[in-house]
Amino acid sequence: MEAQTQFLELQTIGRQAKETEPILGILKEEQKNQILMEAANLLIQETEQILAANEKDMKNGQAKGMKDGLLDRLKLTPERIQGMAEGLRQIAKLPDPIGEIMSERTPSNGLEIRQVRVPLGVIGIIYESRPNVTADAFGLCFKTGNAVVLRGGSDAIFSNQAIVETLQNALTKHGVPAEAIQLLTDTSRETASAFMKLNQYIDVLIPRGSASLIATVVNNSTIPVIETGSGNCHIYVDEGADLNMAVEIVFNAKTQRIGVCNACESLVVHEKIKDSFLPLLRDKLSEAQVELRGDSSAAEVVPMKQATEEDWGREYLDYILSVKTVSSIEEAVAHINHYNTGHSEAIVTENPEHAEQFLREIDAAAVYVNASTRFTDGFEFGFGAEIGISTQKLHARGPMGLEALTSYKYKIYGNGQVRG
Amino acid sequence: MEAQTQFLELQTIGRQAKETEPILGILKEEQKNQILMEAANLLIQETEQILAANEKDMKNGQAKGMKDGLLDRLKLTPERIQGMAEGLRQIAKLPDPIGEIMSERTPSNGLEIRQVRVPLGVIGIIYESRPNVTADAFGLCFKTGNAVVLRGGSDAIFSNQAIVETLQNALTKHGVPAEAIQLLTDTSRETASAFMKLNQYIDVLIPRGSASLIATVVNNSTIPVIETGSGNCHIYVDEGADLNMAVEIVFNAKTQRIGVCNACESLVVHEKIKDSFLPLLRDKLSEAQVELRGDSSAAEVVPMKQATEEDWGREYLDYILSVKTVSSIEEAVAHINHYNTGHSEAIVTENPEHAEQFLREIDAAAVYVNASTRFTDGFEFGFGAEIGISTQKLHARGPMGLEALTSYKYKIYGNGQVRG
Repeated sequence: MEAQTQFLELQTIGRQAKETEPILGILKEEQKNQILMEAANLLIQETEQILAANEKDMKNGQAKGMKDGLLDRLKLTPERIQGMAEGLRQIAKLPDPIGEIMSERTPSNGLEIRQVRVPLGVIGIIYESRPNVTADAFGLCFKTGNAVVLRGGSDAIFSNQAIVETLQNALTKHGVPAEAIQLLTDTSRETASAFMKLNQYIDVLIPRGSASLIATVVNNSTIPVIETGSGNCHIYVDEGADLNMAVEIVFNAKTQRIGVCNACESLVVHEKIKDSFLPLLRDKLSEAQVELRGDSSAAEVVPMKQATEEDWGREYLDYILSVKTVSSIEEAVAHINHYNTGHSEAIVTENPEHAEQFLREIDAAAVYVNASTRFTDGFEFGFGAEIGISTQKLHARGPMGLEALTSYKYKIYGNGQVRG
Repeated sequence: MEAQTQFLELQTIGRQAKETEPILGILKEEQKNQILMEAANLLIQETEQILAANEKDMKNGQAKGMKDGLLDRLKLTPERIQGMAEGLRQIAKLPDPIGEIMSERTPSNGLEIRQVRVPLGVIGIIYESRPNVTADAFGLCFKTGNAVVLRGGSDAIFSNQAIVETLQNALTKHGVPAEAIQLLTDTSRETASAFMKLNQYIDVLIPRGSASLIATVVNNSTIPVIETGSGNCHIYVDEGADLNMAVEIVFNAKTQRIGVCNACESLVVHEKIKDSFLPLLRDKLSEAQVELRGDSSAAEVVPMKQATEEDWGREYLDYILSVKTVSSIEEAVAHINHYNTGHSEAIVTENPEHAEQFLREIDAAAVYVNASTRFTDGFEFGFGAEIGISTQKLHARGPMGLEALTSYKYKIYGNGQVRG
């Protein structure tokens, strides 16, 4: 009986979201921007209420013995709410992709065929305990004319409710249905599981969070998923590389921000330069107390713990770097293609042929020559905002800007054509 | 024990397909075209052996009491083999999309970012008993640098094996690994089910065939799926339409080919013209003995069976047409958006505002003004070939040409950039 009520709520939310599609799909860019600016203002205005709701989540978290790192992700402050508002204002400034004519053709049948960019429809977002995702996901989905159904973590439920109510107020103030953004308040696993099979109403599901969350969604969803995956990112330092540049790039990619998917987790180094390069790198990395784990050939040069098979596949998200020595660029490419997660990979080299070979043969969303892997990011790519970084090959790959939240339709103009 | 052996074969096939990726991805256009032409020639050369293998399948099918329609799909003739060869030659003539620079940008960080078109990787195709799909899928996947793993129906196993061997001979003659095309010879359900979860090796799965086959794949696959769906296609005849044009369009869309996904299954007619239009249409459709099933308002004009709720949602693939009367274009749009499958929808109208409203508000891959829905097709759209018609919104929508079998990567050129 209870389960039936749960799923009834889910059906209702799904149907209501779907019903907003025709309205959202034809909103003018100005209207959408006005509502985004309104939502930003209301978030600031409602700061006290949002903080009070967040305080409840924080108390529950502390009572449950949540770890400091997670509590920090959960915590809202006036500055963080300002950050959310600023995020919405920035999205308002981005050009609206909806309605763009992507291609036009007139085949011999005389039909005029226009490929026009349209919203995806209803986007489901499944995430964990970062309440800022709530406003962020709304902004990106709403700007692209999509309805959004959010399933956040139970730890952030009060914060998410307060934020969603505020965003809904911005919508209704401008005559747009509040159901353009909805939050699942039932955060049970059973409802999450049913949500992942709501193909009737949800067009696309985007999981945002840990590798295990993403794996759960990929394995259980019957709705198409955009996988925003983890990053086991490598930097290959080639024979003849500029060693000082290589030291700076590895240091930046490893230590500039430790817990992110585009941080470097593994160094691959050509054996001919290991004697000169590894001591330089060790000295620099010791500034940030980075632990090295390498194969025996690397350990001959700089004492380090022996890397195990498991190390090559690990996304440490920590001050640890694995070190693999190779005798050729081919061996480097094979090692990286075997262990990488299709995210970001870099070569440091002065050899243009090796650069092109690496760019061509490495199978990843972003492949760099002589730059830090940390640049894989919607803002750094000039997209202005991002919904995540796709590590799959279907639909969108790499940093996903507004266009990743769109589809297209063909509008076809005839004058009585029938098929012969 | 047997199950383990099965899955071991599957693992081997997947791994071998994946291993061809780096080789296929960098083949030059000329090489690919040579191999396609070679494959076409070998199919003709091997006609006798392929027909002998097909004869075995036909005998098994007859012994099992397969229906005539299915036997006809299974049957190969010298003409049909020539058709397969001609299909490969046509694919050879299409421009190769791989390597195309889709966009270039240099953000303020000074990185030069190129978005370059690449193959998807390994494509899995699950289909039923049409052996021509075997050559067709190979041609499209190979031209776009993808490896393909085929899982055809058990009914066509001997035909498929003969065709695959011939295609593999074309590959090896030109020094390309035969594993670029592989066929699962174990056609059990268990292996099919394991195949749909082979995320480690298969990048995309494309089901081709009946609605139930497609539903099984969508519901069971953990690999991203491109859904090539069924078509419950409508034609709305608006108030003030050119009635003769409307008769020709409905007749064509309903009867020109009955069993295809872009055939018209339902007529929506404005009540103000039903008295003049329905008798005209009935007279024309009676040439092809089309049965009408309508609401009571339509039945007042032309006697017909009462349509049930089930009729509105049916893809008949038969000489039957449902007839719904409406009192406005809004009601027509609402009806169609409720029952359609997102495939192809048409309006016949002389009112340009109604045309634009219909094009904008109908949620489908292809929306037509004053033309038959039968044009939704890769050849008619000028793509030259198609792998299917997508009814989902992710990745590709509508007729899918070669580009639908590609992804992209970002190649990024730096000169020592690190992130601040």
